[in-house]
Amino acid sequence: MSIFDYFRNNKKNSAAIAKERLQIIVAHERSQRNKPDYLPKMQQELLEVIRRYVEVDQDQVEVQLDQNGNCSVLELNITLPEAR
Amino acid sequence: MSIFDYFRNNKKNSAAIAKERLQIIVAHERSQRNKPDYLPKMQQELLEVIRRYVEVDQDQVEVQLDQNGNCSVLELNITLPEAR
Repeated sequence: MSIFDYFRNNKKNSAAIAKERLQIIVAHERSQRNKPDYLPKMQQELLEVIRRYVEVDQDQVEVQLDQNGNCSVLELNITLPEAR
Repeated sequence: MSIFDYFRNNKKNSAAIAKERLQIIVAHERSQRNKPDYLPKMQQELLEVIRRYVEVDQDQVEVQLDQNGNCSVLELNITLPEAR
């Protein structure tokens, strides 16, 4: 599913609920499979950057890490609190 | 395995070893269109996080920012230097 599909699917709901969403996808294509993967560690630091701009409730962060051969994909889905 | 297979296999490997890639996509769906968009500012800070893990040449960073209604998508495509 592409990122655009993700938002398209959510459009109906967001119109009613007026939620803000932030989605971060980090894809790393490695040249060597056995190299350490830093995406899990990076995840926390990326969240810290986001917190400088918006208030993020830890409960509202959904993390998914997929590894497929030499490609790792980290996906963070964050539902932001209502705009004040 | 024939000698032709040997070369064929080698070719694949060298193509794979060539480059490492990192792609970061940040998509922000806002509830209000007129709110300020912080993705352009966030971009530099996200790059700083990545630089803590890998060496990134500024020339090797391709940035694209798309805005469509109340949805902003920041895309960073980074070609990493050869693994050492």
